[in-house]
Amino acid sequence: MKVALLGCGVVGSQVIRLMAEQADDLAARIGAPLELAGVAVRRLGRKREVDVDPALLTTDAEALVTREDVDIVVEVIGGIEPARSLIVAALSKGKSVVTANKALLAEDGSTLHEAARAGGGDLYFEASVAGAIPLLRPLRESLAGDHVNRVLGIVNGTTNYILDKMDSSGASFNDALEEAQALGYAEADPTADVEGFDAAAKAAILAGLAFHSRVTAEQVHREGITEITATDVASAKAMGYVIKLLAICARSDDGQSVGVRVHPAMIPRTHPLAGVREAYNAVFVEAESAGQLMFYGAGAGGAPTASAVLGDLVAVARNRLAGARGPEESTYASLSVHPMGETVTRCHVALDVADKPGVLARVAEEFARHDVSIQTVRQEGHGDDAQLVIVSHRATDAALTATMEGLRKLDIVRAVASVMRVEGDE
Amino acid sequence: MKVALLGCGVVGSQVIRLMAEQADDLAARIGAPLELAGVAVRRLGRKREVDVDPALLTTDAEALVTREDVDIVVEVIGGIEPARSLIVAALSKGKSVVTANKALLAEDGSTLHEAARAGGGDLYFEASVAGAIPLLRPLRESLAGDHVNRVLGIVNGTTNYILDKMDSSGASFNDALEEAQALGYAEADPTADVEGFDAAAKAAILAGLAFHSRVTAEQVHREGITEITATDVASAKAMGYVIKLLAICARSDDGQSVGVRVHPAMIPRTHPLAGVREAYNAVFVEAESAGQLMFYGAGAGGAPTASAVLGDLVAVARNRLAGARGPEESTYASLSVHPMGETVTRCHVALDVADKPGVLARVAEEFARHDVSIQTVRQEGHGDDAQLVIVSHRATDAALTATMEGLRKLDIVRAVASVMRVEGDE
Repeated sequence: MKVALLGCGVVGSQVIRLMAEQADDLAARIGAPLELAGVAVRRLGRKREVDVDPALLTTDAEALVTREDVDIVVEVIGGIEPARSLIVAALSKGKSVVTANKALLAEDGSTLHEAARAGGGDLYFEASVAGAIPLLRPLRESLAGDHVNRVLGIVNGTTNYILDKMDSSGASFNDALEEAQALGYAEADPTADVEGFDAAAKAAILAGLAFHSRVTAEQVHREGITEITATDVASAKAMGYVIKLLAICARSDDGQSVGVRVHPAMIPRTHPLAGVREAYNAVFVEAESAGQLMFYGAGAGGAPTASAVLGDLVAVARNRLAGARGPEESTYASLSVHPMGETVTRCHVALDVADKPGVLARVAEEFARHDVSIQTVRQEGHGDDAQLVIVSHRATDAALTATMEGLRKLDIVRAVASVMRVEGDE
Repeated sequence: MKVALLGCGVVGSQVIRLMAEQADDLAARIGAPLELAGVAVRRLGRKREVDVDPALLTTDAEALVTREDVDIVVEVIGGIEPARSLIVAALSKGKSVVTANKALLAEDGSTLHEAARAGGGDLYFEASVAGAIPLLRPLRESLAGDHVNRVLGIVNGTTNYILDKMDSSGASFNDALEEAQALGYAEADPTADVEGFDAAAKAAILAGLAFHSRVTAEQVHREGITEITATDVASAKAMGYVIKLLAICARSDDGQSVGVRVHPAMIPRTHPLAGVREAYNAVFVEAESAGQLMFYGAGAGGAPTASAVLGDLVAVARNRLAGARGPEESTYASLSVHPMGETVTRCHVALDVADKPGVLARVAEEFARHDVSIQTVRQEGHGDDAQLVIVSHRATDAALTATMEGLRKLDIVRAVASVMRVEGDE
């Protein structure tokens, strides 16, 4: 079984190492040995983290993926192009493909799935979401007989590391980001992580699998964590909450559409996701019969991601040997994605107000005007420093947003100090 | 795709309900409708939890499983016979089988796997361990490219419920058991659960999959929770630990054999398994590349177990339609199971001692004599009520057992108040 590898970076070099070190085990599990047919790299001379036979290296990725003797292509270069063209070329030749490319799958997964269907090969992508955590296979196969209602998870390790540091040490966002960069948890340009693009791509993939529909990254409502202050974190802590960047894919109450979103949210400290520290990932799945399930583990890193790639490699190799194919993309439900405004959520808001009679009544009236009911109100401080901290009951995001706009216009409200969605309870 | 169901109890009736309610979804996911061909029951007249067309009911299970038109047999009657004969009969006729029967798989799985191989059908059993939690498929497939070193889990909901009650309320074992029975978490005869038989069967199945070897229930070292006292629980609590009934499957340090055991153990309250409350299950998997993974969810119950059964049903139906088979039993590693004495663990012991000079020295000498080193010692109380609480470093279970025997013989030791293994840290 001949394998072409596209990319020899952090993940690719671990794939090469593990294919060599575990060659006997892999052969026994597949029923045939795996052989590295070639490794496509950008430059030939570069020093690599792993020993590779120089004869295997090539800069001509296109020739490699279409070579007659190649059975399986592993793509770990990332990005849209040339990854897409290479994967499509391989699939069109009937080869099977294993990829970790969440950005591509979330932007244009349908092109890849169609190429796989036409070519008759497999397209597997467990490594694209939550690194080593077996999550896509359980969603795609184990829960194939169930009805998933919600997927709620921490799927970006960098932002979880930053938020965890802010929570445990009181650090500012910038200080926590710098620490994450120094430790290699965040990249020099952290945009993809801290602005939620990475998590949004994963949310799109998860939503597609969970709801048997097609969801693309641009349909995902996305907010990052750059605006979160040490005060937000401390205020959440004081109320028994912790702030996490969540990816949430949920069926609407009538079951006819889904909401897919990535944004920071407060969750109760008693929620199992609250205990997910550092760069770990964890995903909650709520299904009608199975109930609540949680999957936890390392969400990134060379070896964990390579573990997921190799698991897929074994599966597609077994399939090829048996002349079979794994499950195809399942989009029969074709649920539409509703806009963020229709999503039902809750909201925590801190208002700097004047401490005088009638203030609470005016504020409460504004909530009522938008049909948002209040769960708890707490006043902190008094006189000029009075702050009202309010947590709402469930309402549409549009109603909550309109309420916030209304509050900002009230003369008794000096400032809206912080607004944050609340998830994971009620 | 015609399905014969064996058993119409708690799980079987949920399978029937879900097959009817989700018929369209299941058909879309499989590519063909599932049809219930018949339901084998012990008595025809009994009132059932679900509406079943009386024409489908039969007491002749053997005729049902070998009927020409049946494609897939779902076995949820449990126990060794007649389940084994029926499954073997079905597999021998080339049918695929989905079973939740942990006892049979752990006692004589090889007979079933061989029948599946010979007949060319699938044998799937996700529901046999940890109910709805997708665990076997991840072990068998997602981690197929990794090297699992340890599986550590809470796989019996009844005992977890009892131990959790003892921990949270200070109840005795008997009171907690009665409460569990009243709530339906424990059976009238709780032996299979509280003596660890159920967990041991699951441990055997997990070990076989994780280590690509054959492990039977009788090779599993098994201790139940009936001897655990409120004092043990309180003492663990005082030290920052909680007592859980754990199933542990671990490779030996040299990688040449595995230890498989079920026994109560103290784990630190900071360990993720410590937070698993009530009747929930959770399993930690430690793999070389993937690192630590955790799977959490409902470990039992009609609907969760039926969810796992239906996931398997969709998978084997897809396989049949494609003329393919899922992964076979993988036992190529053929690791042997070493006896409990060779297992490396740690130990917590509380000794009632006389409070006089030289006592600690004599006790420490006894540990040293067996090459067991001490991690912490704490003396509680004094005078006649002095108690030494000792936690050892890692040592073989044989050495720890010999140390305990030696301590019991010391004249300065009035009594060994409690002995408990410690897992999940160091």
